[in-house]
Amino acid sequence: MQKLFTIGILGCGTIGSEVASLLLSNKLPELKLKKVLIKDKNKKRAIPSEYLTDNPNDILEDPEIDLIIELMGIEQPALEYILKGLQNKKHLVTANKELIAKHGLKIFEIASQNKVQVRLDATVGGGIPIINTLLDSLKANRISSVVGILNGTTNYILTKMKKGQDFASALKKAQDKGYAEPDPTNDVDGIDAKYKISILASLAFRTYISPEKVQCCGIRSISAADFSFAKELDFSIKLLGIAHRFEDNKIAISVHPCLIPLSQPLAQIDGVLNAIQVRGNLIQELLLVGPGAGPKPTSSALLGDALAVMRQETLYNLMPYEAKPLVFSQDGESRFYLRLTVKDQIGVIRDLGGILAQNEISLESIAQKTHQEEKPLEEIGEATLVMLTHQVKENTFQKALQQISEMAQVKRIDCSLKVFE
Amino acid sequence: MQKLFTIGILGCGTIGSEVASLLLSNKLPELKLKKVLIKDKNKKRAIPSEYLTDNPNDILEDPEIDLIIELMGIEQPALEYILKGLQNKKHLVTANKELIAKHGLKIFEIASQNKVQVRLDATVGGGIPIINTLLDSLKANRISSVVGILNGTTNYILTKMKKGQDFASALKKAQDKGYAEPDPTNDVDGIDAKYKISILASLAFRTYISPEKVQCCGIRSISAADFSFAKELDFSIKLLGIAHRFEDNKIAISVHPCLIPLSQPLAQIDGVLNAIQVRGNLIQELLLVGPGAGPKPTSSALLGDALAVMRQETLYNLMPYEAKPLVFSQDGESRFYLRLTVKDQIGVIRDLGGILAQNEISLESIAQKTHQEEKPLEEIGEATLVMLTHQVKENTFQKALQQISEMAQVKRIDCSLKVFE
Repeated sequence: MQKLFTIGILGCGTIGSEVASLLLSNKLPELKLKKVLIKDKNKKRAIPSEYLTDNPNDILEDPEIDLIIELMGIEQPALEYILKGLQNKKHLVTANKELIAKHGLKIFEIASQNKVQVRLDATVGGGIPIINTLLDSLKANRISSVVGILNGTTNYILTKMKKGQDFASALKKAQDKGYAEPDPTNDVDGIDAKYKISILASLAFRTYISPEKVQCCGIRSISAADFSFAKELDFSIKLLGIAHRFEDNKIAISVHPCLIPLSQPLAQIDGVLNAIQVRGNLIQELLLVGPGAGPKPTSSALLGDALAVMRQETLYNLMPYEAKPLVFSQDGESRFYLRLTVKDQIGVIRDLGGILAQNEISLESIAQKTHQEEKPLEEIGEATLVMLTHQVKENTFQKALQQISEMAQVKRIDCSLKVFE
Repeated sequence: MQKLFTIGILGCGTIGSEVASLLLSNKLPELKLKKVLIKDKNKKRAIPSEYLTDNPNDILEDPEIDLIIELMGIEQPALEYILKGLQNKKHLVTANKELIAKHGLKIFEIASQNKVQVRLDATVGGGIPIINTLLDSLKANRISSVVGILNGTTNYILTKMKKGQDFASALKKAQDKGYAEPDPTNDVDGIDAKYKISILASLAFRTYISPEKVQCCGIRSISAADFSFAKELDFSIKLLGIAHRFEDNKIAISVHPCLIPLSQPLAQIDGVLNAIQVRGNLIQELLLVGPGAGPKPTSSALLGDALAVMRQETLYNLMPYEAKPLVFSQDGESRFYLRLTVKDQIGVIRDLGGILAQNEISLESIAQKTHQEEKPLEEIGEATLVMLTHQVKENTFQKALQQISEMAQVKRIDCSLKVFE
């Protein structure tokens, strides 16, 4: 009576190995591993060799295989393999965020034509069931925003910086622990988070939003000094992916570091954890927190998806979103934090105040100081100014910021951050 | 091409009215309301009268109705109606926790025999998709514990008490706001949370656990003084439902107020919010936070479930758990908090220390004090003792507590709480 579902895995890194081992351990007797695609046949592996192949067609063309778990983590040849698998009527479970963010529309379309399912809970938030929640449990809602700490590596680095480390040594620590790659660009510059927020926004707003449309800024400009100023003002600093749909259906989507009031639960999510907050007309506000990466949590999502496909095999894939014309907005209001280095001259505050007044920006807080954890100022006559504005339109703030950067007394804009309320 | 799913609603209180209005607003065009069962035909309602009936058979026996949403909130006649509906091949979506906690096994069995679905995400945590998460996304995990702030009313009262209010005035405030019933027993004594944790534990451990098996203690013994002592020790106090499955499959299940270290996210969940934490072998730890009650969040869960039933209509209900023999355990270790009133005599601490030593219990902290927000002590010669133990087995602590309560110098045990780590 027990049905068997036969699985092929594309990719055998840490996650592929974990999934293969779990399937071979027979704890989920309804799922049967048949083959795993590997790159290097000579590498020693825990998986018995009869399960290994370096020929993708051993999986893509095997009529016994019901479902492909794709864990290649790159764009090509993953896309080619996936499309071939779907055309051969194999269901797909994937953790490949870049692929889904860039080619999701095409993948869902081919799946739909071939009456097979695509599930992707592992692409965002590791084991956190955010995608299934958006697709299923929250389906009756009009979602107005999805906001998340979507990258565990940068959250780990920022957590270390909150405790006083500078960016370079926090990054080094993350690399030593295996959280960050030798080339950390993908995490540190927000690219990974960009793919993730574009997937979440597409599903939440049921409109395909390309990752190219995401305004993206990483964490390189943040210093430990910003954390200590933020703390004095009762904020923490987090890299957030933010997707907002306004009442008029305009969309704002970005990845950037934000100040978050310490009273907000998101401000408390430290270390490699991820967290996603969803707001909708019925649910009001929902927060999901959990491990955003790692072989075991990611396997939880992948195998949960595989079991769901199996249970619902008679269902074929319904397009979760379409390509619709989009209007983007920068009309959002928020408070802004600004740290800049100025010449210690008479009239700086007056001139700065002039620019702010002219743009109708009022300040909640301003302070001139040097911070102990910063290097002693080498040049005499320099000072650090830290400001927090009241609510102001994004465009207005950016215009004022441009004018401030052109002031003769301003040596540099060190850091400018939005406040997430 | 668009299929229509026809719905009958049993019960028309605040939640029934909200669901009916949402269905009539046509924002979910695939779901069509046909009839709502009401008790009082003379009561004025926003729903047009052609949708109302006081005859349950207008819903239970109508062959056009595909799905029943049950919102009666009581045990009978809800059980009778539900079983009749299932036997007439109607799917069921319910928010009735008492009914599922007590009669879930029978309801799932009848549904399974009749090849219809039962979905129950709205029974626990309002709009928080904890049940769908346990049933679907986490299905590949072996769940070891489910712990939750499951009752918004008591969480609201405890949040007020944290700010210094006493129990009676915090309860009064909750009643004024409509969070607590005139008879608050169901919330305050943990009965509502007991039903919820028994449902969660049954689903998580795939074994039916009757609410009668839940050790249950409400919040009446907590005073504002406990909050201020707890705060000094870096804890908050929450009413938690706790279900734990040990390695040997023994189960511990309870509802009681706990001290929680302020560093734990659960300690920060204030007001009417609910939160549920799940631990499993793959997911490690997942936390879901959201509104635990209210017409809109509950409708989010109910309509999400209705849409899921519709999408998966070809699936019939798989039993989510069975009745299996259970072994309960009290072997768990934790720290304990104890507040007691003693006579201010020489030798109290010595004798108390003797009992603790004899039971091999060591203390992390002990203090003798009176607290400003408490009434001034009326009898001279009384003192308050507050203690925090190191880790100790539950049975051992209970034995020592019994001996302490029998000491001649001990006037009363005011409050004894487990620490949730």
